[in-house]
Amino acid sequence: MTAAAPLLRACRREPVPHTPVWFMRQAGRSLPEYRASRAGTRMLDACRDPALVCEVTLQPVRRHGVDAAILFSDIMVPLQAAGIDLEIVPGVGPVVASPVRSAPDVAALRDLTAGDVTFIDEAVRLLLGELGTVPLIGFAGAPFTLASYLVEGGPSREHARTKAFMYGDEALWHALCERLAAVTLEFLRVQVAAGASVVQLFDSWAGALSEVDYRRFVAPHSAAVLSGLAARFPDVPRIHFGVGTAELLPAMAEAGATVMGVDWRTPLHVASRRIGQAFAVQGNLDPATLLAPWSVVETEVRRVLQEGSATPGHVFNLGHGVLPETDPDLLTRVVALVHEASAR
Amino acid sequence: MTAAAPLLRACRREPVPHTPVWFMRQAGRSLPEYRASRAGTRMLDACRDPALVCEVTLQPVRRHGVDAAILFSDIMVPLQAAGIDLEIVPGVGPVVASPVRSAPDVAALRDLTAGDVTFIDEAVRLLLGELGTVPLIGFAGAPFTLASYLVEGGPSREHARTKAFMYGDEALWHALCERLAAVTLEFLRVQVAAGASVVQLFDSWAGALSEVDYRRFVAPHSAAVLSGLAARFPDVPRIHFGVGTAELLPAMAEAGATVMGVDWRTPLHVASRRIGQAFAVQGNLDPATLLAPWSVVETEVRRVLQEGSATPGHVFNLGHGVLPETDPDLLTRVVALVHEASAR
Repeated sequence: MTAAAPLLRACRREPVPHTPVWFMRQAGRSLPEYRASRAGTRMLDACRDPALVCEVTLQPVRRHGVDAAILFSDIMVPLQAAGIDLEIVPGVGPVVASPVRSAPDVAALRDLTAGDVTFIDEAVRLLLGELGTVPLIGFAGAPFTLASYLVEGGPSREHARTKAFMYGDEALWHALCERLAAVTLEFLRVQVAAGASVVQLFDSWAGALSEVDYRRFVAPHSAAVLSGLAARFPDVPRIHFGVGTAELLPAMAEAGATVMGVDWRTPLHVASRRIGQAFAVQGNLDPATLLAPWSVVETEVRRVLQEGSATPGHVFNLGHGVLPETDPDLLTRVVALVHEASAR
Repeated sequence: MTAAAPLLRACRREPVPHTPVWFMRQAGRSLPEYRASRAGTRMLDACRDPALVCEVTLQPVRRHGVDAAILFSDIMVPLQAAGIDLEIVPGVGPVVASPVRSAPDVAALRDLTAGDVTFIDEAVRLLLGELGTVPLIGFAGAPFTLASYLVEGGPSREHARTKAFMYGDEALWHALCERLAAVTLEFLRVQVAAGASVVQLFDSWAGALSEVDYRRFVAPHSAAVLSGLAARFPDVPRIHFGVGTAELLPAMAEAGATVMGVDWRTPLHVASRRIGQAFAVQGNLDPATLLAPWSVVETEVRRVLQEGSATPGHVFNLGHGVLPETDPDLLTRVVALVHEASAR
């Protein structure tokens, strides 16, 4: 039944009754019910609590009527599960106790096993019982973005240490990314084996790189994740997304995506021209648009739908995550508008 | 004499004896002599001290032998000079005491007059006495980037309030940017009248916008600055630069630049293809490359020179500012390499 859901049909570039829509960070701080559920629980603890993950993942589906749920988690979850000491500091982001900068640091990273993330398996199974035909999207951070957090020790604007590592010791860089790719692949495998029917690989920071560097230092590792998943689950669509990736879209698509996520900087028809019609596209309303009056939102939603209509498969989304200050009622109205304006 | 300097010839797309090179933020934290000169002086106070500005501006010229000096200043200087209460907080950036968010806030902004920035006139005149034939680059922040600081009250990753302002009250947004364009134009006019022979307009955050939004909300105001300058000083080259502007390069060039600054994400020959051969290009070594071993730096410098050789005018630079942790000796070696490898 889920296989016939509009999201999956769009990802496969098949005709859809309406353009499917979901929002990156739809399960999160824009929702008062989320803030109530999370109150008093640290982020990474919340991600390890199957009942809480299930509830928070369902909230935007109930409220907005989106065409997909995305597992409530964090890109750092598999790293913590694989034994890395880290936390998500409110207002800062992930902070890693001992940054990874040397050969012994890399050698100390261990693989992730299914037994490390039984809470994920459990959360997905709980969700399947509630979601009916609404598909669940599994997700993970891509090796480069994970590596950046590990090398920098936290969020970074310039990724200077990460690049210095990459340029300075290419063999060690590849060794690090190979380990992270294995962790990521296993984390996604568990989610799909439990019942997620689409995955999204977030390479949030890939846009910090030139295409030459991306192809040399990053693409092989993201490709290992995406092709590893394709080999086991050939029918599960693979969305690949980063911000500021105008110059990287073809390279990211070639890394093994079936759907390319596009931020708001690149119009969808331009993205589609660059990557070719073999890929569906996802995006790309500027999240800041949702802080504007409805008349602006409506115009922009229609523009994105129009630009997306140039491609056989379009999944409507924002061009990045929902901003915390977004009025959730506007998100609900966007879902209704996308459905109504794209009804065939 | 300065008119024959390689920088000016490259900006005019004339033959050069070697590719000229300078670095954004060359006068700054990477240099121990800068840190010594600045010790105990707050940033905005330093920018208002002509003798200190002169010394700090000259330091990278003496040390590296770059082909241009760039006036040591800050994009917030003209706003402070026009009466806005703000400071540069170390480790944070510009912080504005009373953010600009309403019609009365916009109405309260006053014009900049030459009398507000006599210290700039004085600093430039001091510099001309020292620089000989080395050209001095004047600079200013572009209206959008200045507006973002004023609206947000400080640095911002998402520019969400700025965009909400822009989308929510377009007339007031344009009124704000018209005022900022007038301030910026006067600030540049003073620099050129005093003797700067090139200008660079920094629209650091323009890359946060889609091309549609850039053309609608930003381009007219940057064009007012650039065309206002061109009307008075037709022979002074106008460099226009932002980061993450892959999709905006044509629109930014059309706003009235003669030289387009390009970050490291877009190869120079690709940029040149997009904007056309009527523009010189500036850039675009990834600043993080300078944290790598020399062999990597050398390869990358040669690649940038090769990619820049597709355009009649190429000014070698980084793709963004020098990172504070950069070894200044590497910058000196880059200058020598650029000169030697491009000697004709």
